[in-house]
Amino acid sequence: MIFGPFLLYLGHSDDEVGIKTSRGLATFRRQDCVGEWRHDDSPLTLDLPRMDVTEARAAGARTLVLGIANAGGQMGDALVEDALVAIHAGMNVASGLHQRLRDVPALVQAAAEAGVALFDVRDPPAGLRVGTGTRRAGNRLLTVGTDCSVGKMYATLALRDAMRRRGLSADFRATGQTGILIAGDGVPLDAVVADFISGAIEALTPARDDDGWDLIEGQGSLFHPSFAGVSTGLLHGAQARALVLCHDPSRAHMRGLPHYRLPDLATCLAANVSVARLTSPDVQAVGIALNTVKLAEEDARRLCAETGDALGLPCTDPYRFGADPIIDWMLSCFDISTPAMTVSA
Amino acid sequence: MIFGPFLLYLGHSDDEVGIKTSRGLATFRRQDCVGEWRHDDSPLTLDLPRMDVTEARAAGARTLVLGIANAGGQMGDALVEDALVAIHAGMNVASGLHQRLRDVPALVQAAAEAGVALFDVRDPPAGLRVGTGTRRAGNRLLTVGTDCSVGKMYATLALRDAMRRRGLSADFRATGQTGILIAGDGVPLDAVVADFISGAIEALTPARDDDGWDLIEGQGSLFHPSFAGVSTGLLHGAQARALVLCHDPSRAHMRGLPHYRLPDLATCLAANVSVARLTSPDVQAVGIALNTVKLAEEDARRLCAETGDALGLPCTDPYRFGADPIIDWMLSCFDISTPAMTVSA
Repeated sequence: MIFGPFLLYLGHSDDEVGIKTSRGLATFRRQDCVGEWRHDDSPLTLDLPRMDVTEARAAGARTLVLGIANAGGQMGDALVEDALVAIHAGMNVASGLHQRLRDVPALVQAAAEAGVALFDVRDPPAGLRVGTGTRRAGNRLLTVGTDCSVGKMYATLALRDAMRRRGLSADFRATGQTGILIAGDGVPLDAVVADFISGAIEALTPARDDDGWDLIEGQGSLFHPSFAGVSTGLLHGAQARALVLCHDPSRAHMRGLPHYRLPDLATCLAANVSVARLTSPDVQAVGIALNTVKLAEEDARRLCAETGDALGLPCTDPYRFGADPIIDWMLSCFDISTPAMTVSA
Repeated sequence: MIFGPFLLYLGHSDDEVGIKTSRGLATFRRQDCVGEWRHDDSPLTLDLPRMDVTEARAAGARTLVLGIANAGGQMGDALVEDALVAIHAGMNVASGLHQRLRDVPALVQAAAEAGVALFDVRDPPAGLRVGTGTRRAGNRLLTVGTDCSVGKMYATLALRDAMRRRGLSADFRATGQTGILIAGDGVPLDAVVADFISGAIEALTPARDDDGWDLIEGQGSLFHPSFAGVSTGLLHGAQARALVLCHDPSRAHMRGLPHYRLPDLATCLAANVSVARLTSPDVQAVGIALNTVKLAEEDARRLCAETGDALGLPCTDPYRFGADPIIDWMLSCFDISTPAMTVSA
């Protein structure tokens, strides 16, 4: 259990994508965030009050969230120093980086002296088992992507909210550090031992016999040379009935790898469906989710329309324009009536 | 460093495939194995002298190798009790199971008291990094499979030996516990944290500028619902120039999963080539390796011929019949002359 309210750390970051954990909390748990802590050299903001640790404590913050995600997940000296300042001020510290807070002796000692807690969100649960691929009941949707950090979590949460507004039962199943901080639960999939990737997802989304949906946050991309193993195991463990492909049309190359181009959407979708079929033979792609944050509204709407036409699937920016086109199509694919539709019929 | 000579543990096992680590050492480091330790209920043998711990000590054994691989990698009570007997007799204990010897307090205490060492072969190396997919120099061959435990390690070692007999430089790169015990080095890939799968292979097989080959031991299968994530990351990290597909024609279903059939060879080969191309665009499949141990020789040779004809690639049981057909074809594909051929020309 990680205690809010939160102070969100931006530090010295100038990487818009790298602060996605802090931004995710600011977006989806804004009521629990008292402010942001950034240094003068950071041009970024979450549009929260800028505070230092002392001001944040006075405003009620109990936990500093080191919401910076970088490839490899190491902590720099500046980050450790800032965490120490927060600890000395009496705040808990939460981190989703690969390198654990508990593996930095200075932090462990300071936390013990100050009587505060360190939360390593990326610690996988104990007792994971190897996946079996045994077919299990339940409606599951998985978001997949052309790349890392293209909006899979946002799309999944937007789909959840749209389904809930229709009276459908829909649960967000988090697989990354930001999602886990938002949901309060989940599996940090990239930190799981490789043999247990699919098994971890089977455990996260056990069989369910109701009409509800598990909406599973995707990770990585089958076309990312660093992380495709995670994406493959996630596809196999999810046994998804429905896939939604997520894409950021502003991305010039694979994240962190200037020497790798993004796959085209049709190729990417076909590959994901092919891999998913191993454990879910009837899986269907039900929509495309674009992250259009860098496009003007008119351009964004036009791109969604063109992309949807080209792929023969509904396409939207689910966070910006709502997820209804995808929900409508998915329910018709599976011949599902929503409670609201039943009432009005 | 793990000290031989070895006593190989079979315990109560009645699973021929499950004792593959003990069998691998008996096969490829037979000169370092003094005997096998099996209980009366085990019908298996490695054709080594049957010994208990006391006899093995007298014969010079320094380390008991718990060479049993089971899905999930947990130790049972009987195995722990036997390990304690060996420790009390003054032997080191080596294990390739997921569950670590050092995580069993009774073993740790007993080893400390007896002054012997515990070797967890499945501990991944420290300091692994995320893969980059950056193209690197060097000749690399990767064995891939229709399933787990179909003979990828045997095929890789047989290919190495055949290449060395021709005067080619060829190094075995181990990725599993048995291979690591044989090679004395390697990366236990299924125990690596998921984000580092491809990076671990990039580190295991760095760029090489000579004419030699890194022959990389494959793991799992793209078609195994439990382990395909590992296989995917391995394909991406390897940047293989050549793939060899390994298959056990006696396998009725995917290992451990009666509800999953094996893929057909052509489908499996095409999928592996497709995944490999992401980081190695010019990758070529150069042969098929069948594990024909359960077939009569005539049947085995006929099946190799039929399989090779059907797929348009050389097919052999490299351990039983030699790897030359695959080596010949591979060298011609890449227009490589062997030192011996140069001499005779």
